This record gives sequence, C-alpha cells and structure tokens, in this order.
Amino acid sequence: MKHQKIFKLLNKIFVSKGLSKQHAKITTNALINAELVGAYGHGLSRLKMYCDRISKKLINPKPKIKIKKITASISHIDADNSIGFVAADFGIKTAIQNAKKTGIGMVAIKNSGHYGMSGYYAEQAIKKNLIVMIFTNGPPAIAPHGAMKSLFGTNPICFGTPTGTKIPFILDTSISMINRGKIRVAARSNKKIPLGVALDKFGNPTTDARKALKGVQLPIAGFRGSGLAWMVDILSGVLTGANHSGHVKDPFDDFTGPQNVGHLFITFKKNLFQKDFNKRILSNIKTIKKLPKIKGFNKIMYPGQNKYLRFKKNFKKDIRITNSVKKDLKELIG
Amino acid sequence: MKHQKIFKLLNKIFVSKGLSKQHAKITTNALINAELVGAYGHGLSRLKMYCDRISKKLINPKPKIKIKKITASISHIDADNSIGFVAADFGIKTAIQNAKKTGIGMVAIKNSGHYGMSGYYAEQAIKKNLIVMIFTNGPPAIAPHGAMKSLFGTNPICFGTPTGTKIPFILDTSISMINRGKIRVAARSNKKIPLGVALDKFGNPTTDARKALKGVQLPIAGFRGSGLAWMVDILSGVLTGANHSGHVKDPFDDFTGPQNVGHLFITFKKNLFQKDFNKRILSNIKTIKKLPKIKGFNKIMYPGQNKYLRFKKNFKKDIRITNSVKKDLKELIG
Repeated sequence: MKHQKIFKLLNKIFVSKGLSKQHAKITTNALINAELVGAYGHGLSRLKMYCDRISKKLINPKPKIKIKKITASISHIDADNSIGFVAADFGIKTAIQNAKKTGIGMVAIKNSGHYGMSGYYAEQAIKKNLIVMIFTNGPPAIAPHGAMKSLFGTNPICFGTPTGTKIPFILDTSISMINRGKIRVAARSNKKIPLGVALDKFGNPTTDARKALKGVQLPIAGFRGSGLAWMVDILSGVLTGANHSGHVKDPFDDFTGPQNVGHLFITFKKNLFQKDFNKRILSNIKTIKKLPKIKGFNKIMYPGQNKYLRFKKNFKKDIRITNSVKKDLKELIG
Repeated sequence: MKHQKIFKLLNKIFVSKGLSKQHAKITTNALINAELVGAYGHGLSRLKMYCDRISKKLINPKPKIKIKKITASISHIDADNSIGFVAADFGIKTAIQNAKKTGIGMVAIKNSGHYGMSGYYAEQAIKKNLIVMIFTNGPPAIAPHGAMKSLFGTNPICFGTPTGTKIPFILDTSISMINRGKIRVAARSNKKIPLGVALDKFGNPTTDARKALKGVQLPIAGFRGSGLAWMVDILSGVLTGANHSGHVKDPFDDFTGPQNVGHLFITFKKNLFQKDFNKRILSNIKTIKKLPKIKGFNKIMYPGQNKYLRFKKNFKKDIRITNSVKKDLKELIG
C-alpha cells in the first residue's frame, strides 16, 4: 500500500478514536517509521491494540499533559495516560529545549505507554546536534538473574550521537536475547523463534513463539544483562514515578488499567568539551571500519547504519500489509 | 598482612615516587579497597606497573590538574597525566558538587589513566544521596563485532543508586565476557581461563590466559555488547578529548607515552521527581528478591550486594600477599 494512503488511513482511524489531529499525526508517523525501518513488531501489528486500549479508556485520547520544571535543565512530565508516542514526542522536544538552553537536559515521564522505538526519538535530538540517552521500561518479559519468573521489560538502552554525516550513530538495544515485538510477530505468523532466547512457563527452552510469550525471555549475558535491565527499571520507573518492578501492564493482555510506562531522556551538546567533535567521531568510526574483518563480514557497520539503509530502501517501496493487519484495518475503518 | 601495615607501606612507596601525601593516600586507599572487595586484578597486582610508569615519566606524580567550568552543572578536567585514581577522585567530587548545586552534574576528564573500579567512585556519590553513571575507556581488549582485531577496552558501564539501606545498588559491568584484570591475574598465577571468553592472536578460542592477553576478548552478546562498548568509547574518549578508537595505551605493555584514558561522570539527585524515592526503590528491590528462584539460587542479589558482603568479610581479615606481589614490594622498598 502507498505510504500516503496508509498515512491518511491511520490518521483517520486515530482521529475517529478521539485523538487531536496533531496527536494522530505524531502517532501515525511513528507507526509508519517502524514499518520503514523494518521494525514490524513496533509497526502496524500494534494498531488494533492501541485502538482497543483507547476504546476501553486505558489510553486517554485527550490527555492533559502536565509539565513541571524542576530546574532549567530538568523537567518532569505527567503524560496523563496519553498514547506513548505523544508523551515521548513531547518529552524529547522538552529535553532538546533544555539542553539547547543549558548544555544538558533531563526529562522524566510517568503515566505514559509503549512509544515504539527509542531510536526514533533519539533521531530528533541528533538532528539538533545533541548526544542523547533514552531509557524506558515495559511489561514483564525477562526474568531477573536467578529468578523463575519474568519481571523486567525488554528495557532498551538507547544511545545516539551525531556523526558528522547524514547517518547518525544510534544504538537501540533491548536487554533480551530477542525483541519481544519479534516474538509477537512470529506468534501472529506461526513462525518459530531461535532456541536459547526464551523459556516456556515451566522453565523449559522453547522455539514456540506463543509459549515464549507466556514464559520467560532470557537476558543477554546473564547477571550483566539482568543488572542492565534492573538499571533501566530504576531509571525509567522508580525515579520517574511510573510503574516498576513488574507492574507495567502488558498492552496486549492486561486491560485492568493504564500501562503507566516511564521514560527518561538525557540530552547534551556534542561539543561541550571538544570543539572538533565531528572530526573526532568521524576519525573514530573510520578507524573502526578499517579493522580486518572476520569471515562472513564484508563491512563493519556502526549501530543505526543498517536501519538507515533499510529506511532508504523501503522508503521507495510500498508498505506490505499482512493479512492480519488487513483484517485489523477493515475492522477499524468499519 | 595487616591493612595498616600495607597502608603505610604503599603510602611510603608512592610518596617516594614523588606523589604528594594526599595523592599517595587516595591511590593507596583505592588499591586496598580493590583487594578488600576481591577485585584482585585492580589491586596490588598493579602496584609495580604504576610505579614503573611514574619512573618512566608516563604518569605525572605532580600533576597540575586544570578544571574548566562549562556551566554550573558541567565541568571539564584536564588531569595532566596524573595517576588515574587522583583524576577520578577529583572528578567524582566535582560531579557531586555540581549535582548538589544544580540537581545534575556532568564531568568529563581527559589525560587520565587507569583508575581501578568505577564502582569505587560511584560509592562516593551514592553516600551523598546521588544517582550516578560512570563511563571509562581502556586499552584495546575487545574486538568490535565483525572485526579480527581488538580495539575497544573492556569499557565498563557503571550505574549506582542509593537504596535506602547501607548496601548501595552498584552495577559495574565490563562489556567483555571476562574482566581483563582476571585474565591478567590468571596469567600471573598460571591458571586457565574459561573457554569462549577470548580468542588468541590467530582468532582461535583459547583457555591460555597469556595467549588471551595477546589475542582478542569477546564482547557480551555480539553486536549488542559491541555497540555498548562503542558507546562507552564515544562518551569517555571522543567526547572528552581523551584517546579513543584503540589509542588508549596499555599500561603494562606500552611505554611510548601516557595512557590518556578518558572518563565521564554523570550525577543527579535521587529525589528530583519523587520525594519518596527511598520507599520506591526499597519496594522495587523487595519485590524482585521475592520472586521464585531457579535451581541453584538461594537468593536473588542486586548488583553491588555481593561486593559489599565480600568487603565486610575481608575487612576483618589480613590481606593476602601473593609471592608475585611480595617480590614487587621488596623491589619497590629497596
């Protein structure tokens, strides 16, 4: 389907659900971007879920977002259970303003929801010549090291920086062996997942995506990954006033209340300490790319490079609509 | 050997090498702390190396450390090739001051050296009720994802927060499968290292610690760990003005110049957004500790807890001096 057609369609759906034109546009853009970078688990496969949560008043289509200025650098946002995209868009814009004024910005958000990919918001800050770190928690998906039960979300760590080229450096890595979105897509399309990335609800290894969703995803690197996931839960949940320690609600399965996801954005000017930051990072990337490669690698890519290339390629093509999404769209348009 | 005796001995050695009394004390305390928490790779096994580098004028015993105030929150320190412990001690104290004044502090350091463990400095900030993140780079030890050659240091990520108890939460995790210090200790005591944590210089897996030191350490979690190590190199090297992209010199093997390690400290008040932070984090930790355990786990520990318990236990005992350190001490005391 043509991008413009999908854009109009999604906008119409979200406005019909009660979102303002501006909020519908922010949400639509984020979902289409996810499709274009190939992150299908964060794209149209979630459309129906968002609409269901709006219908059930678990996402507030007309949020009264409150912002509290703590200092010139630091702000606290209560997103009033807005759709996550809107909260995050407001959050990163506030963090950009704060950093532009004072060199460094920090914005904490509570009462938000799933916002897609952290890297999407990192891009906004990078375009303003800022370095950025983003943390968000999520519903239980990963067992803490030593535990038999999921508690941490896939809790991504996102770090982005300008590179002096049009392709930014954006590391946006979840702390699970595999993204939950990918497992969800596999479950919807009856595909298997690799062995070793998840356990079923009895603690046994499984390649069945549906069983994995009911079981436990494994963190990267044992106690190290578990510790990083715990850090993200503290930064985005404990610190901000959002839910934490396993209390963020699963948007697909739990309709007992709003998610109350938390996010933390940290932004700062790239040239705070070195005027020639661009030259330095260009030299850094060039040196690393020049290293001898192991078998099977033609190139060493920096984080974000592949995603950028996928976006460029997909941008020229129509967006593929799966049967499952087709069905969702029909139902939502009525 | 009794702590006090070692304390006096090390102090005497460092003062004889030209360090001020204050700088000798800072250095001695950090080395003894490493022994007490059981991080032997950062303790007395490094004493001779530091002294050698001072003798060869690669560590400056009388540094003129320059501090540049960028904003009320942000400072830049040129450590003038001081011993790393002194630079880091000054850095964390500055970051604490900045955060106490403005809510958030950021301190970048260049022209520094190996400073032991990030967690040791995190403790100082936590005692002042701050949350802290610390990044430092190091000499080549880990191959970027896809490369046949080491370039990144073990580039630890450190995150610490007060917990409302006397045992702080301190995650201090290197991005390698194993700490370089542990490989070094194994090499000195002719012990093997586990399979799968390192390759020899020909790219083959090895359990020989000496061969591993000349080869390549593997990052945790493939491209994810490689991306995190790259992030740390940018934050502590590219951003600060220190060496980066494989140019930090190995303190044991490379006597062609000062190391020029870089560090970045970020500190902020724990109760910026929630007045009841202590209550929230206590509840977070309690909930996670209560989860059902997998076989072989009696308890779920949070990062830093084990280290604290080791410290308490070791504090009551004498410090064990290996033959190798005994030899070093004899040589240094003369």
